Amino acid sequence: MKTRAAVAFEAKKPLEIVELDLEGPKAGEVLVEIMATGICHTDAYTLDGLDSEGLFPSVLGHEGAGIVREVGAGVESVKPGDHVIPLYTPECRQCKSCLSQKTNLCTAIRGTQGKGLMPDGTSRFSYKGQPIYHYMGCSTFSNFTVLPEIAVAKIREDAPFQTSCYIGCGVTTGVGAVVNTAKVEPGSNVVVFGLGGIGLNVIQGAKMVGANRIIGVDINPDREEWGRRFGMTHFLNSKGMSREETIAKLNELTDGGADYSFDATGNTEVMRTALECAHRGWGESIVIGVAEAGKEISTRPFQLVTGRVWKGTAFGGARGRTDVPKIVDWYMDGKIAIDPMITHVLSLEEINKGFDLMHAGESIRSVVVY
Amino acid sequence: MKTRAAVAFEAKKPLEIVELDLEGPKAGEVLVEIMATGICHTDAYTLDGLDSEGLFPSVLGHEGAGIVREVGAGVESVKPGDHVIPLYTPECRQCKSCLSQKTNLCTAIRGTQGKGLMPDGTSRFSYKGQPIYHYMGCSTFSNFTVLPEIAVAKIREDAPFQTSCYIGCGVTTGVGAVVNTAKVEPGSNVVVFGLGGIGLNVIQGAKMVGANRIIGVDINPDREEWGRRFGMTHFLNSKGMSREETIAKLNELTDGGADYSFDATGNTEVMRTALECAHRGWGESIVIGVAEAGKEISTRPFQLVTGRVWKGTAFGGARGRTDVPKIVDWYMDGKIAIDPMITHVLSLEEINKGFDLMHAGESIRSVVVY
Repeated sequence: MKTRAAVAFEAKKPLEIVELDLEGPKAGEVLVEIMATGICHTDAYTLDGLDSEGLFPSVLGHEGAGIVREVGAGVESVKPGDHVIPLYTPECRQCKSCLSQKTNLCTAIRGTQGKGLMPDGTSRFSYKGQPIYHYMGCSTFSNFTVLPEIAVAKIREDAPFQTSCYIGCGVTTGVGAVVNTAKVEPGSNVVVFGLGGIGLNVIQGAKMVGANRIIGVDINPDREEWGRRFGMTHFLNSKGMSREETIAKLNELTDGGADYSFDATGNTEVMRTALECAHRGWGESIVIGVAEAGKEISTRPFQLVTGRVWKGTAFGGARGRTDVPKIVDWYMDGKIAIDPMITHVLSLEEINKGFDLMHAGESIRSVVVY
Repeated sequence: MKTRAAVAFEAKKPLEIVELDLEGPKAGEVLVEIMATGICHTDAYTLDGLDSEGLFPSVLGHEGAGIVREVGAGVESVKPGDHVIPLYTPECRQCKSCLSQKTNLCTAIRGTQGKGLMPDGTSRFSYKGQPIYHYMGCSTFSNFTVLPEIAVAKIREDAPFQTSCYIGCGVTTGVGAVVNTAKVEPGSNVVVFGLGGIGLNVIQGAKMVGANRIIGVDINPDREEWGRRFGMTHFLNSKGMSREETIAKLNELTDGGADYSFDATGNTEVMRTALECAHRGWGESIVIGVAEAGKEISTRPFQLVTGRVWKGTAFGGARGRTDVPKIVDWYMDGKIAIDPMITHVLSLEEINKGFDLMHAGESIRSVVVY
């Protein structure tokens, strides 16, 4: 079949809207009509050539929502007509990682996914007879895409695509970091570095679970209003402040340190500040942001020996097929908000504008609606 | 009163055995006759002038066992004749840290302890009219010492002093890192870096809780035999191996990575290897060793984002008054061994020999018996 798609033919070039050939689903795979997709920093990171493992030409996009249109042999968990969110972190429920019950990092198809291919080692996309790579196992910048059955979460049909697509990455990453990775308890003091889309979702996750103080840190004063909208109780503009000054101020605001701190900036210096502002004895700091290739985090080991814990999270620690439908419920029940975060709605033809808005810091989230 | 003591008059000089004046216990304090004391790397670290906060002249020693001889006003939890282990990490059961139930790092007397003083801001030791500093709140290199009531753990009277003194630091640090900090589950694969006194106690802790593979890593081949004696199942001599080679070998031995890894070397490069050999998704690495002043640990944040956890432990996460008596029970019940680790028994006059043996790597633990 044919599908419209925004293709990344090479790094550092705008996406091109073309018609691709798409092979139907093989055994264990499903064809999904993508109804809406968010544009995420990770797509930009790859498009800008910063990801040393980035592959071109490819169909980017990993934050979508859509409808199953066809299923391959053996597919039992979804059927045509089901509403789904594609999962860049699948959940096979059979590998060592899934069975450990300690991580969401399913390894069933990791090898081929990282190579831009389906589990059988081939691509379903092609253009003028040449294969086009898949991306993060999703490729939601195509109106139709093929996904492994284990990489789709079935969701309720009354959830709007335009907002629930954001649960495919940003919402789950931020809210999940609070709920699944940190397991923030009611009454905790929380510090969030970076009030972009992820940081705002950390804030609303912390609010949902009953955190006490929720302190946002950013160098852009315009973000204070955004933070307060989602439950932030205090704002610190750290522009021009040294690490020591920032930590001293946060210690004052948290009575000795954060019970939980989150880095949503991707800046390794900020990750250090986030760790060191955690409370002596028990404070945990969670790295969410993706750092530039080659950058390292550092601290004195004394920070750990005196009881701070350094963790990270990917996809908010969510086991996609199990947890994503729950987050959709939280949204539909009004426990978390998404609508105000979708600042721009674009057509596929306008997709490059979405990247421009992100780079300019003007959007929280741009969504393409097909 | 008078007491014999080995005094550190200045850094980098041998201890001198002299007779000190010792003031009796004030309110909330106890006088303890130290019966035996271990000589620990931390004493050497301070004596060698590596601890920027080290104070001289002082009475070092923090790993002792003895008998309460006198109690000050208001002391209710111990009485003369009780056998006790001094605690460099006290347990007041009233401060924010103790009440958090999340850490053993009681802060009740932290300020004065770090200044080498009793909680009232003065020293009980003096020599020729000049005050001598306390050390880590213990000063077990003196035959008699004064301690805050919250800094002694009452233990059973049938435990020999010569071995149970080691529970005052090394045993509790190693076994406690496994039991309290990592909470190693039965069937786990464990990797221990550095098979000195602490590392051997990590090994026997891991054996006690039912770990599966217990892999010891050291660059001294003589330590293999020591490790096997306490439950180590595999040995890796990492001498000359790069970090990548060491991790690859450990991944092979652990089917993909350690569930729990422990650094008992104090070397920040080894701490990194310990983190990175932890299993993707859930492996936890615990820093036990004390690093040289100014040294930092580093890694790529990707290591955390993919599920590894970096932690540290002090005094094995043990709440001293509550947990130390339990560890004495484990020793007396034969669940853990101490006797073979006490490789040298010395008189107070021979104490400098104990430091020489440690520096030469010839002892696991030297103990001074008064």
